[in-house]
Amino acid sequence: MPLTTFELSVRFFLQLVCILMVCQIAAWVFRRLGQSQVVSEMIAGVLLGPSLLGWLWPEASAFLFPKQSMPILFSVAQVALVLYMFLVGLEFDLALIKARAKSAVSVSAAGITMPFALGAGIAIYLTNHPEYPVFGQGVSTLQAILFTGAAMSITAFPMLARIIHEQGLSKTALGTLALAAGSIDDAAAWCLLAIVLSAFSNDPKLAIMAVGGGGLFLLFTLVVVRRLLAPLGNLVKGPGEMSSNLFTQMLAIVMLGAFITDVLHIYAVFGAFLIGAAMPKGHFAEELRTKIEPLTVGFLLPLFFVYSGLNTKIGLVSTPALAVIALVVLLAACLGKGVACWAAARLSGENNRDALATGALMNARGLMELIILNIGLERGIIQPTMFTIMVVMAIVTTLMATPIFERVYGRKATREAAIERGFEVS
Amino acid sequence: MPLTTFELSVRFFLQLVCILMVCQIAAWVFRRLGQSQVVSEMIAGVLLGPSLLGWLWPEASAFLFPKQSMPILFSVAQVALVLYMFLVGLEFDLALIKARAKSAVSVSAAGITMPFALGAGIAIYLTNHPEYPVFGQGVSTLQAILFTGAAMSITAFPMLARIIHEQGLSKTALGTLALAAGSIDDAAAWCLLAIVLSAFSNDPKLAIMAVGGGGLFLLFTLVVVRRLLAPLGNLVKGPGEMSSNLFTQMLAIVMLGAFITDVLHIYAVFGAFLIGAAMPKGHFAEELRTKIEPLTVGFLLPLFFVYSGLNTKIGLVSTPALAVIALVVLLAACLGKGVACWAAARLSGENNRDALATGALMNARGLMELIILNIGLERGIIQPTMFTIMVVMAIVTTLMATPIFERVYGRKATREAAIERGFEVS
Repeated sequence: MPLTTFELSVRFFLQLVCILMVCQIAAWVFRRLGQSQVVSEMIAGVLLGPSLLGWLWPEASAFLFPKQSMPILFSVAQVALVLYMFLVGLEFDLALIKARAKSAVSVSAAGITMPFALGAGIAIYLTNHPEYPVFGQGVSTLQAILFTGAAMSITAFPMLARIIHEQGLSKTALGTLALAAGSIDDAAAWCLLAIVLSAFSNDPKLAIMAVGGGGLFLLFTLVVVRRLLAPLGNLVKGPGEMSSNLFTQMLAIVMLGAFITDVLHIYAVFGAFLIGAAMPKGHFAEELRTKIEPLTVGFLLPLFFVYSGLNTKIGLVSTPALAVIALVVLLAACLGKGVACWAAARLSGENNRDALATGALMNARGLMELIILNIGLERGIIQPTMFTIMVVMAIVTTLMATPIFERVYGRKATREAAIERGFEVS
Repeated sequence: MPLTTFELSVRFFLQLVCILMVCQIAAWVFRRLGQSQVVSEMIAGVLLGPSLLGWLWPEASAFLFPKQSMPILFSVAQVALVLYMFLVGLEFDLALIKARAKSAVSVSAAGITMPFALGAGIAIYLTNHPEYPVFGQGVSTLQAILFTGAAMSITAFPMLARIIHEQGLSKTALGTLALAAGSIDDAAAWCLLAIVLSAFSNDPKLAIMAVGGGGLFLLFTLVVVRRLLAPLGNLVKGPGEMSSNLFTQMLAIVMLGAFITDVLHIYAVFGAFLIGAAMPKGHFAEELRTKIEPLTVGFLLPLFFVYSGLNTKIGLVSTPALAVIALVVLLAACLGKGVACWAAARLSGENNRDALATGALMNARGLMELIILNIGLERGIIQPTMFTIMVVMAIVTTLMATPIFERVYGRKATREAAIERGFEVS
């Protein structure tokens, strides 16, 4: 019997209760293991999905997440993501890149090209072995290469920025290097993703719309919108000085950017990131962050982790061959990103300690990887098998980051206190 | 052709853009007319519904608000309302009532009994004239009396509190009187609503669940939950001292309260209000407000106004007889609430200026009226005709409040500046 609109809204409250509580329990456990909040929420999402709850107690799973509620869960998760990517865009700072240009460019170049190359190799192998149906039907080898390459190159920039900031390392050699390299990688990966997605429109009209429209949107946002918004920066001279109307207007612009990029098929997260990058910085951006972050990160974003978890089926990686593929993907991810960034930093003259920390931070895929994977699944580029393999890779690389960073940079107690105090998700 | 989950999420972004933009335009216009934000959002909601957009351009209306998107719009609007009612509960302060007990009790008693009596009279007349089908099928006269009475007795307490606070009148004779009377009325109306709703369960098991369960929930929340939460108040000693985990845990409790009261059929808003009232006050409540209010009021709540507007069909009040009924409802509302509260204040020895201002503020129905009307419509107690008549009454009484208050208390410029600075919705 289909649920009524009212029943769906009641079920939505129950979903929110379960999601928030499971995330809090996971956060409590993983904090004690010296892990970051993002790892615990990624894992909480998987636990609430078919990999654990749906496997142990399918009736509870079907009751808690009925098919009919998926559009609600998905739409709210999309809004959460858009608000979050807007926050990430707000923090994007060109000046940082200039400060450590040489090392940053070589580290970020290594962090894009190496994982892309290894990902391409894996994609070629898998498309030549149709006995492993990991890509969608009708996906060409080139498309598989582009998507896998882009997915391997992701860096969890917001998480990296948060760790650097919370450690008080922003002004240090390591801090500027990691922030600069991370932000270049972040922007490059999103551009790559936009190109990849446009390459999936077999209809040339759609490809033109994605590449041409996306390019126009990028230019228009960073040139015209940025200049139009710049004078508004003067309206906010300190904390609490942004009017509620100005705030709502900025949110309307964010939603418009999300809508346009969704229609162009380069996805809402991209538009939200660019609108964030185009906003006036300083107190203006800080006020937006203060008003948006708590409810977005502490309330809405967990829905996205759970939506991802509902699509992750660990049981799909059931044969030894698939387990080997999962292991190869994980090794290639660490080798291509973590080790390559460490080597690039060493070659650029950084000391071993900074190089190791940079590698560990760049290697974490975090929430960003889940975003690209969900897009790939939604577009039919990858199958649930590949989705699951890549989610495992994202979780493990994110799990690794904190212990390695800690080993190199120490100060466990300080950071734990900082993590408990503030938000730390990416 | 049914829309896919992805298409629905894209449409949701478009809805958000249109809703936020129309609300901003309405706010701009009505601010210039010396009106409050809540009036502009109520009217913006009606304009986006069948009363204007659906009438002028039905294709655009059908595209923007497809039937399939209603569960998403409704669920998010419910979450917005729950967060908002939680904020209202956070501001609920028993100490205020004690300060001006005598006048406050007589004003609030008048503000409940008089509109209830007039509402009851209207309900009796209308149920005896079946040619006006304003109540749902199978609704008894007693049920009609209870619902109409409760709906007439509503006071927009959060709006009243905001105006008093923004005028800097909190510590004055008028301020304490209006706040005390308003908060008694507010709590009384919600209790009345809970009783009314439980009276609608013809199934005795449901009625027992509503009355018994609701009573238990009220006691448990205000006694047990409040005491359990009290020590947490010491964790927040100043601005910015609430950890993200504590914040998320409090939100999980709010959602749990909303879910439980929804299941008991006394509605989520009631549970959220009580959980808010049970929270530790001071910095703790202030931090929760700072984190929740901006995104709730400036982003999510407009969805509720629009959802109400989608159910409001001005065209239904098309015959002279129905227009007369609408006028009688409006007059009874003003007489029973505004005039009665003014008279009660005068009889309690208040000066005329304070009594007039109190009457005007108590008379405004604001958002609170829309909440009870939506519940009535959802439960089939009232028909869309009656819904529309009462929405018009809510808008007009809210429209009247600011000009009357201004005339009596002046300082238009000061308030306008305050309204532009802060949030003012109720």
